[in-house]
Amino acid sequence: MLLRAGLNGNSAYALLAELTTACGPRLSGSPGAARAVDLTAAMMRRYGFVNVRAESLMVPHWVRGPVEDAQLLDGRGRRRALAVAALGGSVATPRTGITAGVIEVRSFDELRAAGPRAAGKIVFFNRPMDPTTFNTFGGYGGAVDQRASGAIEAARVGAVGVIVRSVTLAHDNVPHTGSMSYADSIVKIPAVAIGIRDAELLSTTVARDPRARVRIRLSCQTLPDAPSANVLGELVGSERPDEVIVIGGHLDCWDKGVGAHDDGAGCMQAIEALRLLKVLGITPKRTIRAVMFMNEENGSRGGRAYAADPHRTTERHVAAIEADRGGFTPRGFAVQADSATVERVRRWAPLLDIVGAGQISAGHAGVDVSPIVDAGATGFGLIVDHHRYFDVHHSANDTLQAVHPRELELGAIAGALLVYLLSEEGL
Amino acid sequence: MLLRAGLNGNSAYALLAELTTACGPRLSGSPGAARAVDLTAAMMRRYGFVNVRAESLMVPHWVRGPVEDAQLLDGRGRRRALAVAALGGSVATPRTGITAGVIEVRSFDELRAAGPRAAGKIVFFNRPMDPTTFNTFGGYGGAVDQRASGAIEAARVGAVGVIVRSVTLAHDNVPHTGSMSYADSIVKIPAVAIGIRDAELLSTTVARDPRARVRIRLSCQTLPDAPSANVLGELVGSERPDEVIVIGGHLDCWDKGVGAHDDGAGCMQAIEALRLLKVLGITPKRTIRAVMFMNEENGSRGGRAYAADPHRTTERHVAAIEADRGGFTPRGFAVQADSATVERVRRWAPLLDIVGAGQISAGHAGVDVSPIVDAGATGFGLIVDHHRYFDVHHSANDTLQAVHPRELELGAIAGALLVYLLSEEGL
Repeated sequence: MLLRAGLNGNSAYALLAELTTACGPRLSGSPGAARAVDLTAAMMRRYGFVNVRAESLMVPHWVRGPVEDAQLLDGRGRRRALAVAALGGSVATPRTGITAGVIEVRSFDELRAAGPRAAGKIVFFNRPMDPTTFNTFGGYGGAVDQRASGAIEAARVGAVGVIVRSVTLAHDNVPHTGSMSYADSIVKIPAVAIGIRDAELLSTTVARDPRARVRIRLSCQTLPDAPSANVLGELVGSERPDEVIVIGGHLDCWDKGVGAHDDGAGCMQAIEALRLLKVLGITPKRTIRAVMFMNEENGSRGGRAYAADPHRTTERHVAAIEADRGGFTPRGFAVQADSATVERVRRWAPLLDIVGAGQISAGHAGVDVSPIVDAGATGFGLIVDHHRYFDVHHSANDTLQAVHPRELELGAIAGALLVYLLSEEGL
Repeated sequence: MLLRAGLNGNSAYALLAELTTACGPRLSGSPGAARAVDLTAAMMRRYGFVNVRAESLMVPHWVRGPVEDAQLLDGRGRRRALAVAALGGSVATPRTGITAGVIEVRSFDELRAAGPRAAGKIVFFNRPMDPTTFNTFGGYGGAVDQRASGAIEAARVGAVGVIVRSVTLAHDNVPHTGSMSYADSIVKIPAVAIGIRDAELLSTTVARDPRARVRIRLSCQTLPDAPSANVLGELVGSERPDEVIVIGGHLDCWDKGVGAHDDGAGCMQAIEALRLLKVLGITPKRTIRAVMFMNEENGSRGGRAYAADPHRTTERHVAAIEADRGGFTPRGFAVQADSATVERVRRWAPLLDIVGAGQISAGHAGVDVSPIVDAGATGFGLIVDHHRYFDVHHSANDTLQAVHPRELELGAIAGALLVYLLSEEGL
């Protein structure tokens, strides 16, 4: 019944087209993110969800700015543009940019071993994401430290800038941005991601040309925190309205693409899941709530604000489902709970398998719901076919066209099935 | 080990790029198919497979020809081009084409009920492929009768031509061709597939304009059978060389695209599976043979010729694996055997799951290997994520760009794992 209602329309894709077209990029604090707050509230009202509201919060406000380029200057003075993107949170360079020699390393240990040789240089972290790890999230986790902490580690040894090989499996030249951190006690140096082809060019160039230098110019800046909001809408439970089942994704996204997979998909699947239950005339026993969390990408403020909101004090959260692994064919759910609970969930596997989502395993639910899970709710993370995800993740490749309507809808149906089972049977 | 060797290179995709670029479309009897026979033999020799050979056979030789168009003529004499493609095997129209009124039906029963009203008309079979069937192959099976037998059923009631709604889930306007049949005792009328958008246009037009007519012009023809071949190469077994495990796909494809998914993928995965075992220095106990079957699409001559070839008399086929469901992320294998054998295969599920291919179920292996399976071999069909397959199937959408290198390689690794297990442990 859910299959028929969902696959006849592929409405999740129509919603995602509306979101990405009307809002564009949706980085926290941006005009696009503000439009997305209004639009998703309007979508929920359009479908007759109740208690539709925006819960206010303050978010970090980093802006990329108009100037963002890099040039490779070889020993003979030849210049070549490099495809780069400032990492989220990076400081700007001086107006004239920074120009320095490059030292390539594959790890922090290698960087520390280089020690003084890195002083005054731009550190080039070039360890690839391992394609031989079957789980691409594992491969991502094995490389992302370079992006997250590279600027801190490079500054420790006196470097003036950082270039990080994009954490992706795609063999194009599109830079993949993402969050990075600084330490208060350590000087903040600018950091960029570089496309894979240019990473390989840079690597071969610095290997054979000791006089090669790179010039980086960035105008990005961190503005004062900006007002924003999480967006909520629900189907009120008929028997236990105070018991809440959350399904959601994060509404913000990196600014290079329009966050179709990351995480417009999860947001639209949450709205579509409730819409499907409503069109089928289902009144759940417990309250089912769609939540568009703000600021997952560079602060996780939305997830924390949701859990801390005064409204939560009168509610009991039974479960929280997060969809933030891309809008691909669903496989199952990671359950963040004790093994007995995981076993109880597993009894639903045959039902979830009608949409191919019967693989139930213990695992992390997701960043946005973790504060609710820490507070006692059972966490669920939608697991999908992940092999194409890091081709688009945090880059200009993350477009509506990269999402397949049927694959996206199947994830929404899987979410609708799970929230329905949770609302009727509990845990 | 296989994961590392395979995913480091994604060689299957490089092979597929070579095949599709060098040969183009590969319909049986075409120059492209002839080039593919030579090229795949060269690929196998390049990698040091032994007993590389082409086993000759004769294939049907249908050619589309230069003229292929259709026009919608409404009651006011306005003309509009329709996106059509002759079905494989269709007869041509007269040089001036056929022009007739259109009667739309959704089933053969509806056609018979229409009876005389269909005489002299073009029958428009417009039953969509059901998107609500989770298994897209099931949805395909529920609609393809219109393409396969539509011309016979329409001619029975005196129709002069057939237009079939493309059997696809894509919402574009690209016609999807495929095989059709005639009956000797019944007049042969021309038949075309029409793109989905134009199918909807045609449907609304004939509903409101009884004077609407369609003109179809086709110059396709069936030439005398042409010489062609299956292509074989193997790793000879060290202990039981006369016991053979086949892995293969079909080398021919429909002529509108380059058959990247259908079935260049299966062919290149078979070659890649043997290449991987060879680079890992594995000498199998039983003989593992890659087979490129010719003419699956419009005659299945290759599968039958392979089983009937004199060489087979001195060999015992233990198993035959066919990959012909598109080069998507693998899920598992359909096993065509008694339930006890299926259970024995299931013991390998944990091993196959390292590449996500642990779902073992009873099912049909495939058209090409069925003659060997009928002769006693256990049949295996590679099961993949099928939700995107019918967007490209038998159409101009079936291009190299529609195949993902990692997804393709994972299927090749799954095949390599299974043939290795079969060669070492038997069944």
